[in-house]
Amino acid sequence: MNNRLMFICLIATFVISGITHYAGMNNTVQFIASCVAILFVAGFLGKATENVAHYAGERIGGFLNATFGNAAELIISIILIKEAANGNPQLFDMVKASITGSIIGNMLLVLGLSLLLGGIKYKTQSFNPVLATYNASLMQLSVVALFIPAMFAYSLNDRKTEQLSLTVAAILIVCYLLWLYFSMVTHKDQVTEVKGANGKAEWSRGLSIIFLIAATVMVAFVSEWLVGTLEEISHRFGLSELFIGAFVIAIIGNAAEHSAAVMLALKNKIGASVEIAIGSSLQIALFVAPVLVFISFFMGEPMNIVFTLHELLAIAVAVIIAVAISRDGSTSWYEGVLLIAVYLILGIAFFLL
Amino acid sequence: MNNRLMFICLIATFVISGITHYAGMNNTVQFIASCVAILFVAGFLGKATENVAHYAGERIGGFLNATFGNAAELIISIILIKEAANGNPQLFDMVKASITGSIIGNMLLVLGLSLLLGGIKYKTQSFNPVLATYNASLMQLSVVALFIPAMFAYSLNDRKTEQLSLTVAAILIVCYLLWLYFSMVTHKDQVTEVKGANGKAEWSRGLSIIFLIAATVMVAFVSEWLVGTLEEISHRFGLSELFIGAFVIAIIGNAAEHSAAVMLALKNKIGASVEIAIGSSLQIALFVAPVLVFISFFMGEPMNIVFTLHELLAIAVAVIIAVAISRDGSTSWYEGVLLIAVYLILGIAFFLL
Amino acid sequence: MNNRLMFICLIATFVISGITHYAGMNNTVQFIASCVAILFVAGFLGKATENVAHYAGERIGGFLNATFGNAAELIISIILIKEAANGNPQLFDMVKASITGSIIGNMLLVLGLSLLLGGIKYKTQSFNPVLATYNASLMQLSVVALFIPAMFAYSLNDRKTEQLSLTVAAILIVCYLLWLYFSMVTHKDQVTEVKGANGKAEWSRGLSIIFLIAATVMVAFVSEWLVGTLEEISHRFGLSELFIGAFVIAIIGNAAEHSAAVMLALKNKIGASVEIAIGSSLQIALFVAPVLVFISFFMGEPMNIVFTLHELLAIAVAVIIAVAISRDGSTSWYEGVLLIAVYLILGIAFFLL
Repeated sequence: MNNRLMFICLIATFVISGITHYAGMNNTVQFIASCVAILFVAGFLGKATENVAHYAGERIGGFLNATFGNAAELIISIILIKEAANGNPQLFDMVKASITGSIIGNMLLVLGLSLLLGGIKYKTQSFNPVLATYNASLMQLSVVALFIPAMFAYSLNDRKTEQLSLTVAAILIVCYLLWLYFSMVTHKDQVTEVKGANGKAEWSRGLSIIFLIAATVMVAFVSEWLVGTLEEISHRFGLSELFIGAFVIAIIGNAAEHSAAVMLALKNKIGASVEIAIGSSLQIALFVAPVLVFISFFMGEPMNIVFTLHELLAIAVAVIIAVAISRDGSTSWYEGVLLIAVYLILGIAFFLL
Repeated sequence: MNNRLMFICLIATFVISGITHYAGMNNTVQFIASCVAILFVAGFLGKATENVAHYAGERIGGFLNATFGNAAELIISIILIKEAANGNPQLFDMVKASITGSIIGNMLLVLGLSLLLGGIKYKTQSFNPVLATYNASLMQLSVVALFIPAMFAYSLNDRKTEQLSLTVAAILIVCYLLWLYFSMVTHKDQVTEVKGANGKAEWSRGLSIIFLIAATVMVAFVSEWLVGTLEEISHRFGLSELFIGAFVIAIIGNAAEHSAAVMLALKNKIGASVEIAIGSSLQIALFVAPVLVFISFFMGEPMNIVFTLHELLAIAVAVIIAVAISRDGSTSWYEGVLLIAVYLILGIAFFLL
Repeated sequence: MNNRLMFICLIATFVISGITHYAGMNNTVQFIASCVAILFVAGFLGKATENVAHYAGERIGGFLNATFGNAAELIISIILIKEAANGNPQLFDMVKASITGSIIGNMLLVLGLSLLLGGIKYKTQSFNPVLATYNASLMQLSVVALFIPAMFAYSLNDRKTEQLSLTVAAILIVCYLLWLYFSMVTHKDQVTEVKGANGKAEWSRGLSIIFLIAATVMVAFVSEWLVGTLEEISHRFGLSELFIGAFVIAIIGNAAEHSAAVMLALKNKIGASVEIAIGSSLQIALFVAPVLVFISFFMGEPMNIVFTLHELLAIAVAVIIAVAISRDGSTSWYEGVLLIAVYLILGIAFFLL
């Protein structure tokens, strides 16, 4: 029933967004239509991934969930990179901004709202502290891996910066794959939260695969329509592309995940919320970003892994606070307030930039 | 008896300082006299605040203690801002330097001396580790909130920097008030140390209020006399205004609190020492500094919240070490040594600057 | 038997290295010969120190082990400083690079290999968490003490930078000596890992002393031969002196220690591995580096304690990751992977520089 409504919204918003695009309507209308549509197609893609993961068996399914959980994000970025390679190199900056925005959005806004709302309902909530420790180490690896290229890039020429980017990207992907092996195979008992996922599938095997393909195609289309409007929107509303990438796109692209995390917190499953919020940040930093470096390289217009000082600062700050708060495996509403406060400060700073 | 002696010293030093000021005596004499006087009037103000807090009942009393515990600091800063608004804008730098100095003085010197002296007497001392965790998060919020404006200010014009300062200041004040609500109302049982405070009042209700007003006026006067001497003192002794603000004023203005913290450590109440030292730092970073931003704004000569790189470094370094040491809720004399070592290194660096 | 083979290798590689040097053979041959020789003489020096420490009794022995554990490192650096004072000031940069390299090599490579190999054999390994806490605080002190001079040096003239360097160096040495007092006397029971050291001596008292002197002289000679080749090697292979100092010399000079740490991890004595790896880093940062500042000062060509931004970044990054991983006193193979990943990223960045 609820599912049926979802499908109607999905199709309707997708069609409307397509019409506004191909009819060449007013840019703001196109922008709003594609934003609304992406909320639904990204949610649909997430659901389809989960269903396919269910049929793929525990190991491969877990792997699919962990690597394609941010598929919408990845597709939007690939569309941006494609455009950038077609003579719009400033779109690389928007890719990096949206990576930054996804990381800080997950760590600060999603985690913050989960802790705040969950903490208002339950006095203290707690989760597996061993996982918290590993998350903290991985978050700090992410920061380190992004800071080093940025700090050395000042003294390197473009070719060397590219070599450094590719090597760092390769190391991060290896670390991420080994992390999956560690957390799903060798030390599964220590670091896994009990998840409600992998429970039961909503669709048949064949339908799940068809839906996964359909969702991917739909996300690609809507992303293309959305990206096409950004330049003009940025001018019209006097917003920097950095701000649009880091706050508008990042929030829209992750909205489905966000609401899932908050819902789980309200069911006192704060461990699952943390796994979504932090896990998603880590996936973007350690897997999506490096993969994009390689994809852009093979597209012939390599994007380096060098973030701006402001982006690095935002990521570092998010990690520092998230680590400080999550390390003890126990949470309260006030910790949510702190996370949201830092998100607001960063949002205003980027807005004024 | 002891109280009587205190009163005599209070009146005597206040009068002497006034005489040296109005008689226009030698500047160094004025400086020394006002420094001595401020030790006593600040202590008196602290005691009067505690007494009024006692009569105000637990909640409002706790709130008063928490927000006006650094009233002397606040008054000195307001006097400096008033002078700055009267055509001495470099005094804004001294305000920020004294904020920096109070934060690092509390976190490094006061906490360091408490741990060292308490730890020589008792092999290990311990305090509520839950409070330690929250303190760590709040300290890191302070650093983050001061770093972001500084890092973005390079790329912003003056008006935008002012907007950013006011917004950050507002967010910090909200965070601080919510912290008081959290620690005094919703999670009081988890984060409060047993304090000897609020025990019994020394003075009657009416006397306490009269004394509070008297003390405030006296602090304002002595601060004015002290501030008037600083420029010449700075020239005569070849000390930068940064050093005077961060080390001389900060130490004098907090002396009463400092000795209280060390005394408590010697009575094996290290939790109360930590609450004074860290609590006072947090109050300055999250409440006094933002309030000063607003006060200066309403005085028509807005002070931004942008600290110098050296000040930020000092605060960041103090927080890193204080968090590393206080996180486990267990202390020893050697941890005091480390805190004092960092304070000395910073002191020498600022002195040479 | 094994010992006998060691002695033969020691003498043989020492003699061969000497011959290549005095015969003025091809520079690359000289370089390789002296690298091989230094592996053995450094190992010999380590063993001789342990033996003398054994006879000196527990306290003084522990002190000797703790202060001269990096004697080979110290001697190589002194030879470099001597050369620098003889009109080769760029060798100071190599000294600092090799200090940096030793710190990060111990914290990342040695600790990483120990955790990885130990963790493959044993699912989880654990060590004294109280010691881990102190190690974390001391590591952060090291970073702080190196960052402050670097950040203030931009605004200071040479004379003041020298004063700051000497003061910071003095404070660090005092902190280190107090740490030895703390960890060996007042809080020995809390922070000591059970060590297999001080077990039994291999040589007689007299022989140990003779061997210590002999080993010191041999290390000095081989270091001199090695240093003499570096400039040409650096040109021939297009490697920066920074890279040679931080990666080549640092790895060779610490090789004996490195293998000891890994061996202990494989025997499930991860606490002893950590003590070697982190302890050695701390010794270099808090004792060897400051002592070198004083030695260079007395040699008349003072080396300051100001490291480059890249070196500081490398040290900070190493400390952040090492603290994140070691804080909980429990380790796994994946934590080893993270440490090695950061080491590789730094290695590539310095290589490209």
